Amino acid sequence: MKGKEQIQIIGVNHFSTSIKTPLLADAFDKSDDEKIKNIQHHFKMTMQEMGLDLTDDSLSGTPYHDAKCM
Amino acid sequence: MKGKEQIQIIGVNHFSTSIKTPLLADAFDKSDDEKIKNIQHHFKMTMQEMGLDLTDDSLSGTPYHDAKCM
Repeated sequence: MKGKEQIQIIGVNHFSTSIKTPLLADAFDKSDDEKIKNIQHHFKMTMQEMGLDLTDDSLSGTPYHDAKCM
Repeated sequence: MKGKEQIQIIGVNHFSTSIKTPLLADAFDKSDDEKIKNIQHHFKMTMQEMGLDLTDDSLSGTPYHDAKCM
C-alpha cells in the first residue's frame, strides 16, 4: 500500500490505464458466500475500530448487510 | 456476531434501546491516526476479497480515503 503522502500527491492526478475495473486474476475464484463471510469480518473489525457496540440489535446485522451490498 | 438467519429475522424489527449511537466504553481510547491505519487495513482486505487490483493507481489510495471518511 502507498504511504499517506504519496496517496495525497497522486490524488486524482493519474491517467486511467483502463476503462475497466482493475480486477485481480483470481477475482472470481471464491464463491459469493465465502466473500460475504470474509468481508463481513473486516467490516465488523472496522466498526469495532470506530468504537461501535456490535452487541446492540441496531448494529448487529450491519456487517452482514454491508458485506452483501458489496 | 449473529447468524445470517437471525439477522434476517431481526431485520428492522427491534426497538431502539437508545437514541444515541451504541458506543463501546473504549471508543475514544485510540487516536484517529491509529484508527485510520487499522480501518485502512480492513478496507484493503475487503477490496482484495472483492478481487480488485490495488496496485492500480486508480485504486491504490482508496483504503486510505475510505478509512479517513469513516
